[in-house]
Amino acid sequence: MNPWKCFEMIKIFVTGGTFDKDYDEKNGRLYFKKTHMNEILALGRSKVEVNIETLMMVDSLDMKENDRELIVKKCAAATEKQIVITHGTDTMTNTAKVLGVKHLKKTIVITGAMIPYKFGTSDGLFNIASALAYVQTLSHGVYIAMNVGCFYITK
Amino acid sequence: MNPWKCFEMIKIFVTGGTFDKDYDEKNGRLYFKKTHMNEILALGRSKVEVNIETLMMVDSLDMKENDRELIVKKCAAATEKQIVITHGTDTMTNTAKVLGVKHLKKTIVITGAMIPYKFGTSDGLFNIASALAYVQTLSHGVYIAMNVGCFYITK
Amino acid sequence: MNPWKCFEMIKIFVTGGTFDKDYDEKNGRLYFKKTHMNEILALGRSKVEVNIETLMMVDSLDMKENDRELIVKKCAAATEKQIVITHGTDTMTNTAKVLGVKHLKKTIVITGAMIPYKFGTSDGLFNIASALAYVQTLSHGVYIAMNVGCFYITK
Amino acid sequence: MNPWKCFEMIKIFVTGGTFDKDYDEKNGRLYFKKTHMNEILALGRSKVEVNIETLMMVDSLDMKENDRELIVKKCAAATEKQIVITHGTDTMTNTAKVLGVKHLKKTIVITGAMIPYKFGTSDGLFNIASALAYVQTLSHGVYIAMNVGCFYITK
Repeated sequence: MNPWKCFEMIKIFVTGGTFDKDYDEKNGRLYFKKTHMNEILALGRSKVEVNIETLMMVDSLDMKENDRELIVKKCAAATEKQIVITHGTDTMTNTAKVLGVKHLKKTIVITGAMIPYKFGTSDGLFNIASALAYVQTLSHGVYIAMNVGCFYITK
Repeated sequence: MNPWKCFEMIKIFVTGGTFDKDYDEKNGRLYFKKTHMNEILALGRSKVEVNIETLMMVDSLDMKENDRELIVKKCAAATEKQIVITHGTDTMTNTAKVLGVKHLKKTIVITGAMIPYKFGTSDGLFNIASALAYVQTLSHGVYIAMNVGCFYITK
Repeated sequence: MNPWKCFEMIKIFVTGGTFDKDYDEKNGRLYFKKTHMNEILALGRSKVEVNIETLMMVDSLDMKENDRELIVKKCAAATEKQIVITHGTDTMTNTAKVLGVKHLKKTIVITGAMIPYKFGTSDGLFNIASALAYVQTLSHGVYIAMNVGCFYITK
Repeated sequence: MNPWKCFEMIKIFVTGGTFDKDYDEKNGRLYFKKTHMNEILALGRSKVEVNIETLMMVDSLDMKENDRELIVKKCAAATEKQIVITHGTDTMTNTAKVLGVKHLKKTIVITGAMIPYKFGTSDGLFNIASALAYVQTLSHGVYIAMNVGCFYITK
């Protein structure tokens, strides 16, 4: 068996969003503790080499101009050519557009979830898995991966 | 936003394997009832149009020559160009090789699981999601998608 | 085998609380849709006959004087001698006290959860199961069942 | 609030059964690794003090005469007056009868599951929780707790 060239290092930037929200027992609200990315990759027995970096942990409705600038700066500076960004769904397309106009020579896939991962019925696991597949196979450009579909933003 | 061309109909052939095993309360053994593919796609809120067909429900160690012939015949006859096959992990590569030598002008991705989907800790959801992404983006050939990695068999 | 006298009809009054909270995808908040009591009893394969009635669906911090009066009135009027009440944890003891001073000739067990049932890691299933056991075996009085412990309020 | 006398030390004897079965990835069979009792109690946030001891890890169809003798001997020797035994469902009543004729001055509750705990849809959590409640409230005798019902064997 001839292994296909899949195993290039993938950068994962965590920015928060529904996907990573936890339940706070003290006040009954949802909040951010830390990312669940590592346990998700372990559950999926992912063999892909990843480099996870948490940039922020915010609801994407609270994402400010300078937050997006940080994301762009980090994507530009990353040595990896394949980047997955976890992001709140509300302003996912805004970040995609800001990234798109930079025309970085990289494949950037933004993903997230409608339901927190810690809820048994989350779509997050599915979306992360498809994002990790898309980032390895799509040509340079900025994409959004949700619901197993992949939406092209800019190339 | 310019939607990327992702939404071509995908054929899913179900053949059984660990992935679809259920627990039989009466005798305490694992067995096949029916595929969980529909509930998995619903959980992942998949927007991709799929056409699911169960070819067999067998442990891949019990897969016979004529079972593989049926899989090849069905893949050849399918009008879809993108095909995902769920399959037991033990003989996954055998089926991939049999399919590969046919050089069908289609993208065929074989996937499965190490743990039954009905177990809370299954890798199946992850593998299915990545297979559905790979099948939409890889060029014609036969591939195995496990652990978010994609192994090329023949093109 | 001589079946023990366990199968008297149990009344379950649902009042809301963390236990029954769902995740609202539209605004990312927790809210009440409807009780999960039926699916919980199905999961536990409960053979006990129950009569479920939703009195209200509120966070117990928002529970008003007249809400507690309704609970008391309903408990007094119930023909069942065994009553389980699902309730938010914040003011569980308040309701227990209001019920306790009525000295109803019934066994009333109040229970709830620290984590919503729909979260995979909820304590709710455990608490409901123990409440259903306690209500069948304790003498008349008002009790709180949380964490497999049972706290006596009044008799 | 006057705490009710619930917190007497409870002995838990583990004997195996469906409840504790794990999935063996290597050969696709169910097998015993070790008991899940500790994680179940943690999930239920049990505040009850327990003393867990694994006597054996067997399918109850494979339970021999001397296995039951060991269970009886251990129950007789235990300093605790409240004992829960996890057990395969197939021969649960046999063990209950053997224990019943000894007329130990203890409350012994036998429980188990129809589906392994590690399966997402197990009834095991429910049964354990109700067993822990029953063992604290029932008078001396041997009982089986399944499906939230409690069946009296001997007193």
